[in-house]
Amino acid sequence: MDQGLELRTLVREDATLELSLVETAVPDPGADEIVVRVEASPINPSDLGLLTGPADLSTLSASGSAERPILTATIPPAAMRMLAARVGQSMPVGNEGAGVVVKAGSSPEAQALLGRTVAMIGGGMYTRLRLLKAADVLPLPADATPAEGASCFVNPLTALAMVETLRMEGHKALVHTAAASNLGQMLVRICKADGVPLVNVVRSAQQEKLLRDQGAEWVVDSSAPDFFDKLVEAVAATGATLAFDAIGGGRIGSQILTAMEAAASRGAAYSRYGSNTFKQLYIYGALDTGPTELVRSFGFSWGVNGFLLTPFLAKIGPQAAQKLRERVAAELKTTFASHYTAEIGLAEALDPEVLRAYARRATGEKYLINPQKGLA
Amino acid sequence: MDQGLELRTLVREDATLELSLVETAVPDPGADEIVVRVEASPINPSDLGLLTGPADLSTLSASGSAERPILTATIPPAAMRMLAARVGQSMPVGNEGAGVVVKAGSSPEAQALLGRTVAMIGGGMYTRLRLLKAADVLPLPADATPAEGASCFVNPLTALAMVETLRMEGHKALVHTAAASNLGQMLVRICKADGVPLVNVVRSAQQEKLLRDQGAEWVVDSSAPDFFDKLVEAVAATGATLAFDAIGGGRIGSQILTAMEAAASRGAAYSRYGSNTFKQLYIYGALDTGPTELVRSFGFSWGVNGFLLTPFLAKIGPQAAQKLRERVAAELKTTFASHYTAEIGLAEALDPEVLRAYARRATGEKYLINPQKGLA
Repeated sequence: MDQGLELRTLVREDATLELSLVETAVPDPGADEIVVRVEASPINPSDLGLLTGPADLSTLSASGSAERPILTATIPPAAMRMLAARVGQSMPVGNEGAGVVVKAGSSPEAQALLGRTVAMIGGGMYTRLRLLKAADVLPLPADATPAEGASCFVNPLTALAMVETLRMEGHKALVHTAAASNLGQMLVRICKADGVPLVNVVRSAQQEKLLRDQGAEWVVDSSAPDFFDKLVEAVAATGATLAFDAIGGGRIGSQILTAMEAAASRGAAYSRYGSNTFKQLYIYGALDTGPTELVRSFGFSWGVNGFLLTPFLAKIGPQAAQKLRERVAAELKTTFASHYTAEIGLAEALDPEVLRAYARRATGEKYLINPQKGLA
Repeated sequence: MDQGLELRTLVREDATLELSLVETAVPDPGADEIVVRVEASPINPSDLGLLTGPADLSTLSASGSAERPILTATIPPAAMRMLAARVGQSMPVGNEGAGVVVKAGSSPEAQALLGRTVAMIGGGMYTRLRLLKAADVLPLPADATPAEGASCFVNPLTALAMVETLRMEGHKALVHTAAASNLGQMLVRICKADGVPLVNVVRSAQQEKLLRDQGAEWVVDSSAPDFFDKLVEAVAATGATLAFDAIGGGRIGSQILTAMEAAASRGAAYSRYGSNTFKQLYIYGALDTGPTELVRSFGFSWGVNGFLLTPFLAKIGPQAAQKLRERVAAELKTTFASHYTAEIGLAEALDPEVLRAYARRATGEKYLINPQKGLA
């Protein structure tokens, strides 16, 4: 048995969020299991949903020691209702990560991984040592570092899922919001490689420049005064009738559907029911947790759906999902390369200043946790 | 050729809505055509969308004569953009209606209808005489009056489409809003006959009583302080995961999805992605034309779609659609009976007071136009 150290999030009954590092005992691996020394795990928006949830970060308060910090914050009463099912449970965090296999069970599959750098998904990755099944990891090419393999699943597979959805549902082109994100930059590269027209919606002139410098053809800046006209122009030129929105709150999704409807109705006879062109918006993130506002000036032929990767992979089946994973491994350093703002240790992740920085979810800023860094 | 009289709606370039009665020449029917003396045509919410559109009814101004009244009203500038395609076109109104066949073409099909009372769909029913194809009308049972057959299509088929959708998409029970409407009362009767659990959402205690008196089992009043708790209770008891919303604007659809999620998560382990239970909301009306606000506290497994009858009938195909129509004709005086607040003539429909009354779209109030009434 090894001694582990793990970042935990706890919602207490008194409406307090408590983040801490917990020492754990890591059992020796069973025959088909391995123990991975985690060296890199990204902080994705979906991780923040579990880590800090709806806590009011202006109330952050630090205690504990430098090596075993404890952070607490107040949770608004309205939000507590949604958290009833997790009250009192100390929960591990971190969807995905990568590291080196340091122990392996007796099975040939497990033994074959000893010393290999592998990518992992399955939660609880903000931890020093992670026990999991040999079958559940993706061995990385020999020249790949854990940092390069840390974001092998969530962003790459989500970006690929968007293009798969376009093909499955028969759309011609795609609109993507928060398009300057790590995921958005991957999507630019995938769409270029696959010949899929992509309309990138960004939130600043700097982000527009970033994507244009990477060769993106259609980029519209929602902060510009002529945003809507440019959006209609790009949607009409590409024929986009499908959109993936990472923002969720506000009217951006509605504006995209309205632009699609405007493009579809150009030159058509008036119909009070709108066009027959079906327009589909998927909300896959919640960068803005406020309400989604649909202004419904886009007829009746439309759909808005929540989108999650795991059910999508289940829907396409294990073979199709495996093909996507293999493409990620093969193009790890090109199409699916991620960029990080900073690499931080477990204790550092519980520094109030650092936490506030990564919890901002600023587009293009992504933090990487290295559980081995600064370890006492 | 006969002399006709037809209600028309016109959006003028100067952002004015103009409603008037226009004399028309009704051609003699071709071989497979008939002329119907329209005696009853309902004012459905979908008709109001075309008739008054987004005009500001506080600016209504009457001119013309008692027999040929003209009404005008101002259209807000923002709304004019959506109406560009209909500017300058004098448009007939009235989706559906019923009347007596007074002329018929030479074909046996047309001749067989002479003197029969028929129901019709196809627009332009607020008119004295309507020329259409013999194949496009539904002959009514011998004892049915035009008033009884006036609402044979829109409400009955939409209500049946909801239950068909439930079966096609594999849901167990249904939530319906504005449930005290004529359509809602039909749906209560259909669901009772078909054994489909139905949660009726109404907006007042009187409406709740109305539906309970008609034998509705689950009725929740959105104006009551314990509305949400009662909604969760009804959704949990019935297992409803499908909703049809006539209101469109505001948070009622979001509340229904949240109630479904609360019912689905009862006793389940915490997941920050919400339950795996798929929840579907269809918006089929716009009693509230304001934005739809989705608070998104219902996980990621959900869909919100616009719903229109015509594409639905096209999707299920002509045979299935014909079966629905036959059920309507067979149960015209029972399941599909409509109730009207008042029967008005064409000129009366352009009385400012009368128009304001039917344009309120108050649940349970429906007006019937009889183009033969008060005709000069």
